[in-house]
Parts: sequence; C-alpha cells; structure tokens
Amino acid sequence: MDIDAYRFLDVAFAEAERGLSEGGIPIGAALFDADGTLLGQGRNRRVQDDDPTLHAETAAFRAAGRRRDYRSTIMVTTLSPCWYCSGLVRQFGIGSVIVGEAVTFCGGHDWLADNGVSVTVLDDPRCVALMTRFIDESPDLWDEDIGVAPSSDRLP
Amino acid sequence: MDIDAYRFLDVAFAEAERGLSEGGIPIGAALFDADGTLLGQGRNRRVQDDDPTLHAETAAFRAAGRRRDYRSTIMVTTLSPCWYCSGLVRQFGIGSVIVGEAVTFCGGHDWLADNGVSVTVLDDPRCVALMTRFIDESPDLWDEDIGVAPSSDRLP
Repeated sequence: MDIDAYRFLDVAFAEAERGLSEGGIPIGAALFDADGTLLGQGRNRRVQDDDPTLHAETAAFRAAGRRRDYRSTIMVTTLSPCWYCSGLVRQFGIGSVIVGEAVTFCGGHDWLADNGVSVTVLDDPRCVALMTRFIDESPDLWDEDIGVAPSSDRLP
Repeated sequence: MDIDAYRFLDVAFAEAERGLSEGGIPIGAALFDADGTLLGQGRNRRVQDDDPTLHAETAAFRAAGRRRDYRSTIMVTTLSPCWYCSGLVRQFGIGSVIVGEAVTFCGGHDWLADNGVSVTVLDDPRCVALMTRFIDESPDLWDEDIGVAPSSDRLP
C-alpha cells in the first residue's frame, strides 16, 4: 500500500494545486479501484462553480459516475474528510480512505475507521504546507467551506 | 413547529413526486430559514442527471447557494437522511431537520439528534406509501442509491 498511497496522493495533490491556481480552495481527491485504476478525480469547486456541495471527495465521487459496488475502491484526499465527505464514504461503503494530512483539519476519518473503513493518514508535508498557507491567507473562505459561522470559534 | 413542519414537508413531497414523474428516485427536500423563507429545494437526481452525488438534501442545499451560517436553517426531507446527507447537516451546522418518514429507511437522524441537531420525525403516511411502492418496484435502483452492493444484504 505504501508506494501506491503516494502515487494516489499525487493525483489528489495535483487537483488541489489546480484548484488553488483557479482561485479555489486547494483540496483534491481521487477514487481508485483496487487494481489502481483511476475511476474519478476532482477538487473543491465552491468558488469556481459557486457550489457549496462540491468538496473534493464529492467531486471525485461524481466524476466516477454511477456504480453498484464501492467496497474495493479507495478514496484518496489531500485533507481529512469532513463529516459530509465522511458520510459519503460510509454510506456508499467505500472500502479504503487515504488521507494526505489531518494536521490543519481533522474531520471524520477516525469515525470511518471505527466503522470498518481502512484509513491511512500520511501526514504529507506538501499537503500540510498547502492548507496551512491557504487557511492563513483566506480564513473566511475556509470557515465557509467547513460550515464555521462568522461568530463561531474557529476550527479545528 | 407542528403546522410549519407539514407546510415544509409539502414542498419536499412535491419534489419527490416530481422526481418520480421523471423516472427518478422519489425523495425530495427543501431548506428553509427560521422565518419560513424557502432557501432552496431539490430532489434526488441520480437517474435524471446520471449523478450519484445528488441526493434530495444535497440538491436542496446546492440550490440554496453559498451561505455563511446555517444554524437557524431547517432541512426538511421526505426520508430519513442517509449518512452522506446526515454528514452534510452536521458539517454545515444546519440547526433543525424535519424527516417525513424513517420507516422504509433509517439513516443518521438519531446521530444528528445526539450531536445537537433538532430532529422531528413525522412518519407521514404519504411519504411511507411513496417509498414503499418505489422500493418494491425498483429495488436495484434503490440499493444503488444507498450504496448496497448487489451481493450484500438489503437494507434496512
């Protein structure tokens, strides 16, 4: 898994970088089959499409099209999946999740592991650096993307 | 809340019926503000748009556009929200959820209640009848929509 995990992460990270270059939130994701076949990839498109439902994971899931069985699939994402995206993984029975980093934001990946999903957290320095810089430069946009209302305490 | 809950549910139910008339999965939802203003409405569009990410709740949430604070909003849905849609509610801090019925499918509404969301389950006979008939007539499509693989045991 170790070598593939980073190969998979590279696809998600390229999506995150593309999102940043578009003025968007730099989170990327991809869905692979067990044999390493890329099924779909995507990035957060809140800004680009003015669409609050397109987190990186949901964009990758959408790009993979309608499928009948996700048990052997692997979702790789540059950032720990929020509850929305963790719920996606659990509901559709995605078997494995590879998380680029959970330092700048910690979503539901432990909950997924508790519910039978194979979870690998890489704590990749590129991913940490990308999100650290983004959150520092665009705190309000980041709060919007994870549902932190203006008068609330900042997460995590 | 009682009168408004059924007024809100009527909007979601009309979406579900529209979905059925389009050949889709008959689940509808709507997002309201605390004063009863309709912010967005939608229906499951898996079949219509060939898009597995558009559950009724995510479609309604998308239709409501980008927002900074969901704490006073109310999501009404004809069916108990699956983990994916429950995760949406939790992540974005939607304050209240009104569930048309949780008889034919039970998702994460108890989990939401445990995490501070105000949850009302109406067990509306129209909603139960609509989904009972749909599941009976289209079991494979229903399983696809909730991530039950062909060889798995049927839910619930």
